[in-house]
Amino acid sequence: MQIARFENKSTGRRYIGAKLPAARDPAAGSPEPSFLAFTHEAALGEIAPESSLAWFDEDGEALPQARRLYDAVLRDEQRLAAAGAVLPGSELRLLAPIARPGKFICIGLNYRDHALESGMGLPERPLVFSKFSSCVIGPEDEVRIPEGCNELDYEAEFAFVIGKRATRVPEERAFDHVLGYTCVNDVSARDFQFADGQWQRGKSCDTFAPLGPVLVTRDEIPDPHRLSIEFRRNGETLQASNTDQLIFGVATLVAEISRHVTLEAGDVISTGTPPGVGFARKPPIYLENGDCMEVVIEGIGTLRNTVVG
Amino acid sequence: MQIARFENKSTGRRYIGAKLPAARDPAAGSPEPSFLAFTHEAALGEIAPESSLAWFDEDGEALPQARRLYDAVLRDEQRLAAAGAVLPGSELRLLAPIARPGKFICIGLNYRDHALESGMGLPERPLVFSKFSSCVIGPEDEVRIPEGCNELDYEAEFAFVIGKRATRVPEERAFDHVLGYTCVNDVSARDFQFADGQWQRGKSCDTFAPLGPVLVTRDEIPDPHRLSIEFRRNGETLQASNTDQLIFGVATLVAEISRHVTLEAGDVISTGTPPGVGFARKPPIYLENGDCMEVVIEGIGTLRNTVVG
Repeated sequence: MQIARFENKSTGRRYIGAKLPAARDPAAGSPEPSFLAFTHEAALGEIAPESSLAWFDEDGEALPQARRLYDAVLRDEQRLAAAGAVLPGSELRLLAPIARPGKFICIGLNYRDHALESGMGLPERPLVFSKFSSCVIGPEDEVRIPEGCNELDYEAEFAFVIGKRATRVPEERAFDHVLGYTCVNDVSARDFQFADGQWQRGKSCDTFAPLGPVLVTRDEIPDPHRLSIEFRRNGETLQASNTDQLIFGVATLVAEISRHVTLEAGDVISTGTPPGVGFARKPPIYLENGDCMEVVIEGIGTLRNTVVG
Repeated sequence: MQIARFENKSTGRRYIGAKLPAARDPAAGSPEPSFLAFTHEAALGEIAPESSLAWFDEDGEALPQARRLYDAVLRDEQRLAAAGAVLPGSELRLLAPIARPGKFICIGLNYRDHALESGMGLPERPLVFSKFSSCVIGPEDEVRIPEGCNELDYEAEFAFVIGKRATRVPEERAFDHVLGYTCVNDVSARDFQFADGQWQRGKSCDTFAPLGPVLVTRDEIPDPHRLSIEFRRNGETLQASNTDQLIFGVATLVAEISRHVTLEAGDVISTGTPPGVGFARKPPIYLENGDCMEVVIEGIGTLRNTVVG
């Protein structure tokens, strides 16, 4: 299932729901994706606020009910479509699948080659830092260059989302706590980041965490450590790697972080970026007004955002 | 008003409410504090979950209604007491006034003398780092020594809480966005903190953010930059300073942070710690199983937590 949040462009109403697979009949022409709105009044109604973290809790009430609705629609049950709970993509604006994660955990230097290009050496254990979750934006939002920032940079990242509370979970059981996967652009003001020493401010300016376009549940990606990942600026590929290059994979991260920090449903863990970021290039590349950024991850999709300011 | 969260020890029900001033009649004997439960069914009922951040939003519906109830009780209106919405402190367990802040922002090296004792120099601008909000605990909870940590340290901190969304707010209007003040103990695993370079992990282990005992609203503390602040371990004073020593005060912090990071109702900003932390002492003092920690701030109260493990 591909969990999405979206706004009906006509009514302004916001929903949490799922992207439906493209029409199976190729004769129907180029398939427009459609979306099932779990929170539509004909579906689960307003059983929870559209952005509540309870939606991401596999032990909660909402997600299992939502899966049943989704399966019914896949079996061609027409009730929800007839009632208006299935909406064509063209009428929607996509939002970040999670508006305000409880924690937005980032891992530094987690691709072997990126650690080397940064000149910081290989980490012995996952290097944890964070973004404030108030900087999350969706796949149709713009990234703003902050006042005073002259070195705005991109980082394509593969992220996973927690679906079940995790405290001291061993690697063997780690995936039970993973709901699914998404793309993150770990936008960074390098001048702020390195001036402070602590990376928080340079990583957490408003709009610095594009997230999406969808959250793909675990069952759809059997091996998260074999996915191509790219970053493109204005169509030019600047990062191209594969999650098989991760130093610390998903299970190790769940185990290592949850030794000391309880992970909760809806927490986002962004696993780090591959080589090719702007500040490490010779000459460096920094983002400018009008640049189109794309994070492309196999099996998830393209997270596309424009830079303004 | 002193906002508090608490649990009825008999029923296990949790409430958000306010601590009532001690009985005005000294002949009544040693006054036991009592608490008005805003979320009691006879008061505002369950108009929001007890830990919702909406409770801290001065532009929201709950807080203005809660203030009216509180004023009515202060005027000796008996209705709520008769209905059981006023509870004696002895029947309650106090919780952190904010269970899960949207952001838990910390400021490093913000007391002149502490910056010097740490050997890190004076910051030119507020040094921002953060704790994960999942490590918040209340004034009756225990701090656990994490597995593998040998250098557990304390930091008494004066914190303020946002009551109104703030983006690029100038210093002159900063206090309009401050709901009130509380105590924080910025518990730190120094071995984790300095091994990583980034402070996040060493600052964010579960139980590392005791917060409380109450959130005192702004009107009760006319000058937040003239409050004594102390840390005591097992009764011995190890930090003793005054918020007049802050390099960056409340208004400057709101203005500086909100230049780039939108502040939201319920966000906690912990303003840094004065000199006397354990790792900077000669010889160093680290916390041990059974230690009683107290953060004492004038006008707010005592935040007392025991170390276990």
